[in-house]
Formats: sequence, C-alpha cells, structure tokens
Amino acid sequence: MSAASIPGGITSPLGFSVGIGEAGIRESGGPDLVLLASDRMASAAATFTTNQMRAAPVLLAEESLATGGPTRGVVVNAGCANAGTGAAGLDDARAVVAAAAARLGCGAGEVLPASTGLIGSRLPVGAMLATVSTLGLSRSRAASTRAARAIMTTDTRPKQHAVSASLADGREFRIGGMAKGSGMIHPQMATMLAFLTTDAPIDAATLRSLLRPAVVRTFNQVSVDGDTSTNDTVIVLANGAAGGPPLTGADMAIFADALEGVCRSLAIAIAADGEGAEHLIEVTVSGAATDADARAIARTVAASSLVKTAVHGADPNWGRIAAAAGRSGVRLDPERMRVCIGDVAVYDGSPLAFDERRARRILRGATVPLLLDLADGTGSGTAWGCDLSAAYVAINSEYTT
Amino acid sequence: MSAASIPGGITSPLGFSVGIGEAGIRESGGPDLVLLASDRMASAAATFTTNQMRAAPVLLAEESLATGGPTRGVVVNAGCANAGTGAAGLDDARAVVAAAAARLGCGAGEVLPASTGLIGSRLPVGAMLATVSTLGLSRSRAASTRAARAIMTTDTRPKQHAVSASLADGREFRIGGMAKGSGMIHPQMATMLAFLTTDAPIDAATLRSLLRPAVVRTFNQVSVDGDTSTNDTVIVLANGAAGGPPLTGADMAIFADALEGVCRSLAIAIAADGEGAEHLIEVTVSGAATDADARAIARTVAASSLVKTAVHGADPNWGRIAAAAGRSGVRLDPERMRVCIGDVAVYDGSPLAFDERRARRILRGATVPLLLDLADGTGSGTAWGCDLSAAYVAINSEYTT
Repeated sequence: MSAASIPGGITSPLGFSVGIGEAGIRESGGPDLVLLASDRMASAAATFTTNQMRAAPVLLAEESLATGGPTRGVVVNAGCANAGTGAAGLDDARAVVAAAAARLGCGAGEVLPASTGLIGSRLPVGAMLATVSTLGLSRSRAASTRAARAIMTTDTRPKQHAVSASLADGREFRIGGMAKGSGMIHPQMATMLAFLTTDAPIDAATLRSLLRPAVVRTFNQVSVDGDTSTNDTVIVLANGAAGGPPLTGADMAIFADALEGVCRSLAIAIAADGEGAEHLIEVTVSGAATDADARAIARTVAASSLVKTAVHGADPNWGRIAAAAGRSGVRLDPERMRVCIGDVAVYDGSPLAFDERRARRILRGATVPLLLDLADGTGSGTAWGCDLSAAYVAINSEYTT
Repeated sequence: MSAASIPGGITSPLGFSVGIGEAGIRESGGPDLVLLASDRMASAAATFTTNQMRAAPVLLAEESLATGGPTRGVVVNAGCANAGTGAAGLDDARAVVAAAAARLGCGAGEVLPASTGLIGSRLPVGAMLATVSTLGLSRSRAASTRAARAIMTTDTRPKQHAVSASLADGREFRIGGMAKGSGMIHPQMATMLAFLTTDAPIDAATLRSLLRPAVVRTFNQVSVDGDTSTNDTVIVLANGAAGGPPLTGADMAIFADALEGVCRSLAIAIAADGEGAEHLIEVTVSGAATDADARAIARTVAASSLVKTAVHGADPNWGRIAAAAGRSGVRLDPERMRVCIGDVAVYDGSPLAFDERRARRILRGATVPLLLDLADGTGSGTAWGCDLSAAYVAINSEYTT
C-alpha cells in the first residue's frame, strides 16, 4: 500500500517540534528564524548546491554531516543568505549554530544551519542569538505552518506536505517536509531549501542512499529561472520515534516511495509558485534510452524561456518545445519524436493538423502538461517549471536578492 | 596593421553581388528572400547549430559543403525556418536551391540554403521559385543594407559590418558580413544566421580552420534567451577576387584577425538587439586557468536571468553575478575572485564597500561592462548578452516563432 497524505508538515512525524522567532533579519519584518528539533538523536542526510560559490551555512552543514554523527536539529533563517561573506560569514554561522545547540542542550556539531535571502550581506548575529536562546518549541500543526511561512522569501504561499505509510509488519511511520523556492531556482544536484522529517527508524547511510535518487527525480527536475542558488539545501532527519528495528528489505522500498512522494509534492509546489508564475508546466518525456536522458530533456523544455513565454501567451507553439528538446544534449531523432500539448498531438515526426482552440484551452489551465515521446526506449522522466511573465521581470528588476 | 572598418557589408569585398525579393513568405509582407552571389567560384566554410532538431536548409547546406567543392552563392529566406518539416521540407529546400542555381548558371551543389522564421510551417515553394528566377543582382552598398534588412525577423535593425586589411606584400583584401539574431539566441557551436564574404584568396580547408576559432570567440559567446535555434548558420565565402596567391604564413594571422573582428562586430550587434533589450551586457573574465574556462564563465553570467533583470533594474546586485559564475561548471575559488561593475569593484573574496550611485549609473548605460577576475591563471574571454525586460515576455507571448 502506498503512502497517504496526512495534515501538517515537519511536525507531523512523532518526536519533532519547531520554534519560530523574529530576529529582524528580514527587512520587511515578520518571523524569519526557525529551529527544527528532534526529541532524540536522529539520522541525517542532505544534498547541497553544486554552485561553487557555496554559502557559509552550506559549508558548515556539510562539515557537521561529514562526521557521520547524529543530529538533533536544524536552524534556518530567511532574509540573508550568508553567501559571499568569506571567513566572517562562517564564524557568524558557527555562532548561530552554537546558540541553537545550547537551546537544545546538544553539541554544536548536532545542529545543521541553512539560510536564504540576500547574497553578500552579514547575519545580524547578536539579534539571532538572543532570539534563538528564548525560542519556544511546539509540535502543533499551526507551528509547522508558521515555520513554512517564516522561511519564505518571494514565495507567495507556504509549502509543506506530510504522509503516513505502513511497513510490512504493520508499523506506521510518517514523513513530513517543508520547502521554500520562488527565484534563483534551477537545482543541479540539490535544491532550494527543503527540510524533511521522519519518525521511521533508519540509519544515516541508508537515509543518504535513499535521499539522492528521490532528489534527482523531484527537486532537481524543477526550474524557475535557470539560476542555481548558492544556498540550495535538502536535509532529512530520521529519529526512529515510530519504534521498532531499523528498516530493511521491502520496508526500504516503502520508505523510499513515501520519501519521493513528499519530495515531489514540495518540488511541484515550488515550480507552481515560481516568481511571477501563473501556470505550472509539467513536462513528461517517455520512450527515451534511459531515465536520465528523459529527465534531461524534460528539464530543458521546462526551463526554456521560449516555451515559458509561449505558455504565458497560451500559444500552442510546438516548434519551441521540439527545439528545446533538440538542444538538451541528449541524442534524439526528430523524425521519431512525438509531441503533445495535453491530449492534443501536435507533432509526430512532422507537423500534425490539430485543434488549436483545444490546445489553447489546455495552455490556459493552472497545470499545463507537455508530453514528448522519443520512440527510442523505455526511459521516462518528468520536470516542472512555470511560465515566464512580466511579473518575473518586475520582481527581479526591483528586488535585491 | 590591423583591419580598418569600411562602409557596407556582404557586397563590400570584390566580386560579390546580392539580389533581394519578396515571395510572400513573411506574414507581415516585405522583402524576405536574398540571393548572395559570387562572380566566380568561392571557397566556403560554415558552422551550424548543435540542436539535434536541425532544419532542412542546415541538413542540405552541410551535405553540399561535405563534397568540399566550390560555392557560387547562398539563398536565404526569412518568415519560415523550414524546421521540423521532415522529408517534405528537405525537398522544398532542394527546389529553392535548384532555382537559385539556375539563376546563377551553376550546379545545385554550389548554392547553400539558409532559413529563419516560424518552426514547423512549409516554404511557399512556388512563389519562391518565381521570385528567385527573376532576381536582379547588385553590388551596391544600398543592396547590401536591403539584404541585411530582408533577413530580419524580430530584429529591430539590420546588422552588417565590413573591414579591409593589407597582407604582408601590400595586397588589400576585404571581409564583409551580415547577420540576424533577436530571439532563440544561445549558440553552442554555431549561431543565428550570419553570412560573410571575402575577396581574399584562401582555400576551403584553411577557411574552415580559421572560421571555427573566430565563431567560438564571438557568435558562440552571445546569448539572448538561452534557447539554441534549429537553424543557426554561419557561412563564409572567399572568392579570391583580391588576386594573388593563396594566403600563407603571416597573412593567415592577418586574415584570421580581420575575420574575427567582423564576427565580433556582428555578434555584439545581435546581443545589443536582443528581443526587448535596452542594454548590451559585456562580461569579461580574466585570470582563468584557460581561455575556454573564461569564456564559459562569461557566457553563464551573460545568460543569467537574474543578472539580466538586475541590469534591467540598474541594481548593482553583485551576488547574482558571483552566483552565476559559481554555477558555470568551471572550477573557481570564490575567495580569490574579484568582481567589478565597470570601474567599480564590488567583491574581492568578500563584499567591498562601494559607491552605489556610481554603479547604478554604469548599469544605466547602453553598454554595461561586468568584469570578473579569478586570480587563477592567464585565461580570458568575453561574452555578450542583454537585459531581460517585460518587452521580451510580451514579444514571445504574442509572437509565434
């Protein structure tokens, strides 16, 4: 049986709580600091940006994870990316992590940092230390929603998702997650900020081995504007509060499936809430030689400025879709390729006559499905993007990220 | 002595003429068909798109060039890309080429085709044959300008450039060129449409060996929107009308330098006239391990949506410039990197205090110079892009390419 959605987000799994504070990091005011805590030591796994301009919190989180030791929590802020800040920025991140560890009564290496916001400015460390040390922690669903809201930048809505599923022996476990996205979104091996929790008993090495393929198929298949951030981070904490022995065998597949489902839900929410977006674009590629090839083509189509503007204008311009596929770097034969806008076939090795009004109606939908079949194998994959609007230009001409 | 600019374009070298016709290919009407002719057999070299969805004229031109035989002319149309049209499109291109060859009294393999415009529609072959067969040819500068205008799509101005230079023995030669660009501009190994002529005596193999590095450093360093077209083509014809023996030794370097100069001028004109653009962005990278590394970083920065919108908003947001460099795929050390907006240094391993008003003034200029130094070697390179404006979105939401 597959995982079922349940209400809430990161506090839905047993044994997790969250604190939300306002440290004045965000120019516009409002909550901007989140401390995610596990009651007990948790296994942790993470993926980070491939941008070589890596933010201080990315460097520090990676350093802590490298020890392979357990994790008690994550401290996150919006309003300042703490990127491009050199050695001073790393010291700032260490100070904030130390304060969060003191609040949780654990070692500094057991708290992972993450930041999002303006590149190049320093964290207001004094205010953050004062805020962290007095944070109250809550397990409530309202708190998880407040946390998802506190990490937003230009996002227009909080993004969280939780599921529960049963293992082979009937034990239940839960996975919850929250994410922020919006701009500078074009993950390569990791992504924007996303935090996942689970009460399943699972060791760190296994968790790492399951997180990567889930991220590759979900967060890494999202593009808003082709720009990979300096701070992209996905962290998952597994605290075993569901009880029982560590997952093995068939249970690993159940867990992996549930994990990928939460990642996919958050990834889609990020694409749908891309800066200035009015439509979610879902590109599905089938018939490729490999899944990786299919994902690469899907990603290229979803990220194409010309496909994005065509969707914005409800223009059934399949030439742009086919041309984007052709420049993806994956070998394909245009004479075998088939392109559909929703259920309207528009190209099949050569142009098809099609119902333009129906195609335009599909392009005006909240979710726009674009499908390509290469007739060359069994590989498939999906990517998610959004339309490119004048609002994206306005947001990014006027907002300093 | 380096090459000097002279008036005109493709008819400025000796022995080249051009005919311009109106075949009703372009929905908006006006001249849309150009026949470029050499009085005598010319050596030809070309580079084409790396998009695997290659247009019929690209396939046919490549087939003709593969014989290594001489070339008498090029037939170009705007208004229809003849891409995604399958075997029928290839037949259409052959028919147009045959008519152009008949007009010039040469073999069909001696005329190269090129097309630009809407993907997926068929050429109006009947009207094109009638137009081609009655085209008048002219050597005038006015005709070269009309030709540069006839190949435009959403370009706002014709793009041509010509130079003359002297060889070691005092012989003069000339190189002329014209190009169209505007949208779907992100060449990888070739580019948009560009046509170059020269009266220098130079064999086809040498011409090929000189064209590629010039294209790599000029047309391939331009991005308007990250979308590589199905029809990108650069063709150079050398007819030897300047007289004397084929170029060798030091003369090759003189010619290569002049050729790159014409390519650079046209490439910059394409970036400056990108769809909706108000600013030319010129990104220069120095101190890289290799020239190729420097070019890759420059290209990534120039193509970044976030850098483009920051320039549009005159926002001295160096974090976006540094972040784009960090995701270019080239290894770099952010702590050694230096970033300048014009002559204003904004980042040098860590943020610098800088004169924001002066930086904004530079960002409001017609040409915006962005400079990055990696302090890691002697490699350097430049790329050209343009700002991203609401007008780009409007053009591409409303126009079917």
